[in-house]
Amino acid sequence: MRYGAIEAGGTKFVCAVGDEHGNIEERASFPTTKPEETLQLVFDFFHGKQIEALGVGAFGPVDVKEDSPNYGTIGNTPKLQWKDYPLLSELKSRLGVPVRLDTDVNAAALGEYMHGAAKHADSCLYITVGTGIGAGAIVNGETLQGFSHPEMGHLLVRRNTNDAYPGKCPYHKDCLEGLAAGPAIEARWGEKAQKLYHQEAVWQMEAYYLAQAIMSYTLVLSPEKIVMGGGVMKKQGLHEMIQQELETLLQRYVPLPENYLVPPGLEDNAGIVGALMLAKTAK
Amino acid sequence: MRYGAIEAGGTKFVCAVGDEHGNIEERASFPTTKPEETLQLVFDFFHGKQIEALGVGAFGPVDVKEDSPNYGTIGNTPKLQWKDYPLLSELKSRLGVPVRLDTDVNAAALGEYMHGAAKHADSCLYITVGTGIGAGAIVNGETLQGFSHPEMGHLLVRRNTNDAYPGKCPYHKDCLEGLAAGPAIEARWGEKAQKLYHQEAVWQMEAYYLAQAIMSYTLVLSPEKIVMGGGVMKKQGLHEMIQQELETLLQRYVPLPENYLVPPGLEDNAGIVGALMLAKTAK
Ligand SMILES: Nc1ncnc2c1ncn2[C@@H]1O[C@H](COP(=O)(O)OP(=O)(O)O)[C@@H](O)[C@H]1O
Ligand SMILES: Nc1ncnc2c1ncn2[C@@H]1O[C@H](COP(=O)(O)OP(=O)(O)O)[C@@H](O)[C@H]1O
Ligand SMILES: [Zn+2]
Ligand SMILES: [Zn+2]
Repeated sequence: MRYGAIEAGGTKFVCAVGDEHGNIEERASFPTTKPEETLQLVFDFFHGKQIEALGVGAFGPVDVKEDSPNYGTIGNTPKLQWKDYPLLSELKSRLGVPVRLDTDVNAAALGEYMHGAAKHADSCLYITVGTGIGAGAIVNGETLQGFSHPEMGHLLVRRNTNDAYPGKCPYHKDCLEGLAAGPAIEARWGEKAQKLYHQEAVWQMEAYYLAQAIMSYTLVLSPEKIVMGGGVMKKQGLHEMIQQELETLLQRYVPLPENYLVPPGLEDNAGIVGALMLAKTAK
Repeated sequence: MRYGAIEAGGTKFVCAVGDEHGNIEERASFPTTKPEETLQLVFDFFHGKQIEALGVGAFGPVDVKEDSPNYGTIGNTPKLQWKDYPLLSELKSRLGVPVRLDTDVNAAALGEYMHGAAKHADSCLYITVGTGIGAGAIVNGETLQGFSHPEMGHLLVRRNTNDAYPGKCPYHKDCLEGLAAGPAIEARWGEKAQKLYHQEAVWQMEAYYLAQAIMSYTLVLSPEKIVMGGGVMKKQGLHEMIQQELETLLQRYVPLPENYLVPPGLEDNAGIVGALMLAKTAK
């Protein structure tokens, strides 16, 4: 079976054609500009490719409830041209195939669950720490959804007492994303995260904040595996530092599975492979 | 169909016989003493009742993974006589019917989801604030489970700056349960919660802590409905105070569903009705 996949991000749309085992046969990437413009490039890419169905991992906010009249419509995004854009229904009518859409992070969680670092786990959480912080999860074999898709990046954390930085979240100021996403690191320490590798204090603080969030995810969801990716997680040793902080915070209250916190098995392909997997159950 | 249900608590075992619609026909309650003693009373109760299957909501820690060799065995509990007790397999072999077991809070969540305050919701969370704080959830139509059952009562919260009480959790000291369960209220203010109704400050602080936890549950799970029960939640107006704090914390980042935080629809029957529902899918 040939399926189509789109990773619809805020800066680019990655399109791919692949099979039901997650193998990507062909891909292309287009800048996210105006909806009609970007989608035209998408339609051109898929033209003649004979895909059976399409899976989409989309930037948010987006309505991900399959039974909603607005399923697949972009919500209140700062990218104003995309606000209220009916992404799924446009794709469906122009391509003439079934389409399933979920959040970008749920797609990445699904990719890692089916073909990546969590492929032998019954449940998993995928978290990306980059320009923002977001997470998706697989629970009872399905992507996690509720009244809205989860927004796990905005958890409240306890401040490190040495941290005078006020936080960068426009909603909550010093929530997790406001304190620990890449732009917060840069604003606090005056340099991009990738330029701060030699400063131990940067990564201690980062690990402390991220470990608190991992503690909450663990207590609430108890996933068998937590896959941590995104630009900031490229810092060598950060996974281990977070694991150590997590153990200190949890105080053995729950025994953690072996190899609990891991980097993505699919590297930067988690999202597009997950989107391909979404296509398999598109209706 | 006639089903059996047990709410296996740390102080008492509630047993019931009922039907697939959640109607309880008969019930009895026995003190939790030694396993053999308590179970003998349970067996006597069910003797001749001709149940098709049994559902159990159990105190924890307990192994709730149906494919585990220790499914239904009690874990490392302070009630030493129950430690490592194979509750499910004893019930199954003595009663000779299929048995399904989940945590007490997951059973309560299931009861409220099928027949209580969350019966029109697609997902829900049930939280009890009493001697301890615990929560269960229904996600994708099933009780939420991961590598271990969730332990949502031990989330970290930000301390109220006026709160000098160090916290009561033996693991984390000032986690949610350590700061906001009934015994913490009593230790901090010098009287049982039900004697403190006239002191506004008690309930402001309580609402602040509980709202932080509800914020985390909301961001991680996004349940359509949150049912809040347990002794402490009997305080009139507390649900509304928590809702208000929650709105302040969330800053409209996620629009909350109408009637999001509600008291249990089944009052104190959520757990036993949920256990009855577990029986329907016992294997
Ligand atoms: N190798 C790296 N080490 C540490 N931080 C990095 C690295 N690469 C990128 N970052 C940081 O990650 C952020 C970008 O995140 P990224 O995941 O690459 O993109 P996005 O989240 O926009 O998809 C920036 O703040 C950047 O400073
Ligand atoms: N009406 C009430 N108002 C406020 N707090 C109460 C009330 N009833 C019980 N509590 C408090 O709730 C705790 C007991 O919780 P409860 O849910 O009744 O039992 P348990 O959690 O042991 O099953 C005690 O700390 C008690 O002070
Ligand atoms: Zn925020
Ligand atoms: Zn605790």
